[in-house]
Amino acid sequence: MAVYTELSDEEMSGFVAGYDIGALVSAKGIVEGVENTNFLIHTEKGCYILTLYEKRVRPADLPFFLELMQFLADRGTPCPRPVPDRAGRMLGRVRDRPAAITGFLNGMCPRRVRAEHCAGVGEALAHLHLAGRGFTMTRKNGMGPETWPALYRQSADRAHEVAAELPGIITGELDFLARNWPGNLPVGVCHADLFPDNVFFIGDALSGLIDFYFACTDFLAYDIAVCLNAWCFERDRSFNITKARRLLHAYGAVRPLTAGEMTALPVLCRGAALRFLLTRLYDWLHCPADALVRPHDPLEYLAYLKFHCRVVQPGDYGLG
Amino acid sequence: MAVYTELSDEEMSGFVAGYDIGALVSAKGIVEGVENTNFLIHTEKGCYILTLYEKRVRPADLPFFLELMQFLADRGTPCPRPVPDRAGRMLGRVRDRPAAITGFLNGMCPRRVRAEHCAGVGEALAHLHLAGRGFTMTRKNGMGPETWPALYRQSADRAHEVAAELPGIITGELDFLARNWPGNLPVGVCHADLFPDNVFFIGDALSGLIDFYFACTDFLAYDIAVCLNAWCFERDRSFNITKARRLLHAYGAVRPLTAGEMTALPVLCRGAALRFLLTRLYDWLHCPADALVRPHDPLEYLAYLKFHCRVVQPGDYGLG
Repeated sequence: MAVYTELSDEEMSGFVAGYDIGALVSAKGIVEGVENTNFLIHTEKGCYILTLYEKRVRPADLPFFLELMQFLADRGTPCPRPVPDRAGRMLGRVRDRPAAITGFLNGMCPRRVRAEHCAGVGEALAHLHLAGRGFTMTRKNGMGPETWPALYRQSADRAHEVAAELPGIITGELDFLARNWPGNLPVGVCHADLFPDNVFFIGDALSGLIDFYFACTDFLAYDIAVCLNAWCFERDRSFNITKARRLLHAYGAVRPLTAGEMTALPVLCRGAALRFLLTRLYDWLHCPADALVRPHDPLEYLAYLKFHCRVVQPGDYGLG
Repeated sequence: MAVYTELSDEEMSGFVAGYDIGALVSAKGIVEGVENTNFLIHTEKGCYILTLYEKRVRPADLPFFLELMQFLADRGTPCPRPVPDRAGRMLGRVRDRPAAITGFLNGMCPRRVRAEHCAGVGEALAHLHLAGRGFTMTRKNGMGPETWPALYRQSADRAHEVAAELPGIITGELDFLARNWPGNLPVGVCHADLFPDNVFFIGDALSGLIDFYFACTDFLAYDIAVCLNAWCFERDRSFNITKARRLLHAYGAVRPLTAGEMTALPVLCRGAALRFLLTRLYDWLHCPADALVRPHDPLEYLAYLKFHCRVVQPGDYGLG
């Protein structure tokens, strides 16, 4: 939640002039997107988002993200559609940073998640997975299981400061997941970060999916596992099976899960919980004192992980 | 440049439902306004700004500011027009804070001020001064000359840390201004903070004046003095007489200055420079280490003050 880079009115107008979207009439830095700088711009033709990619996004990955958004938008996914410049390029450059203009999506992120939201996100995720079929570019999940041991090593010496039990649980879990990660599930385009912050609703109706900057080619069911973690726990860290059931049923009505995916779901949920536990732990321990963004509490995800470890069968998620 | 208060989608929608502006479809916290929290909202009817008034604005002053904006907007000033709620009230309340919705203005603040901008701001200020005639509410300038000695006392013991000469210059100036402040000049509605941050342009054409939260009833020529300080010095702190001439001539073409105002201009400019020197000095010395907003350098205004002290006659500003 910070604008990292300010652009002058002249830089902004000059950049927009490279696009066939009319002259710029307004530009506001917006408090959205932790990794990048975003401006909500108004031109003579409408509203758009101008994004400057800051250092946490690898420039080499940007063509994948932008091509994917265009591909998905063409197939009905309500995601930001990159606007090509007058030369047909989706990726531009301003203030020595990669930059892009995308369409503007109406809607607001739900602060308090309700079961209706979970149904909406389940359905939209399944549509996204179907829409992604035929997308020929691939990108390895930069936050996949093989990256977790190295990620943990960067926090291992201080993990006990956050919770005494944390080092034991994490090393045990890394070991368990290395031995039990599934190997043969349907693979495709995953959003991989579909948190409530990245989903817009107008009333109960889902209106937008944003922030594709973790998107990758991975097990589709892992994307579901990320959503179960992100959408189906309450503030008190308890699991809400009603929300999970709504999410999974709405997903399954569009793309039925395979038997293998159902069986693998508890392990995938453990993996997804560990992935966010590890990144939050890292951010918690490495956050500069003057950071604009307060890091999320890693212990939320420890609680979620413990829940998944107690799961015996897919029915515990409301499946079947 | 910070959103201080986050509102949930439900609080936001609920607040907007109290207005006849259609349902809320989007709301983005924007990086604009140091004192208040601002959201750019889109409803079914258009774009608006939702402002939450944070603690630096006195609630008792809000009716003056909002009535003034409405009065000026009705008379053609391109300022945000407060939108009354369904009960006709311009001032609402959300998350235990005073709040208002105003119309959205196109345009962008100039980062690099050009002479054309100075002409635009001079003309707009004169129109604002004329439009303000007949506004019956009054508000004392909360940053007027009688407040400066007390303001300086809050920084006096550490002023020398910023520049060794500062205490001597400020006390001398306070004394000079107390003895020489004019007493009989045309009074009216002043913006009193018309910095480039608060003025929008589309190309060279002025499109908006915002941030009326220092507006008050004071010498109209003092408002000009504020603008000469805010618009007519270069990055190297030198005075640009071309810009001043454009500003003053554009102003005078709409509302000619009286002889008394011309004579008083150098003293008013000294006062305006001291006022911003003192508030910047205070912010510089009292800024919390973790502040989101970096304070402005007070020494800029020391340089401007020194320039005004050397001014011999109004012609030094390009007048006449």
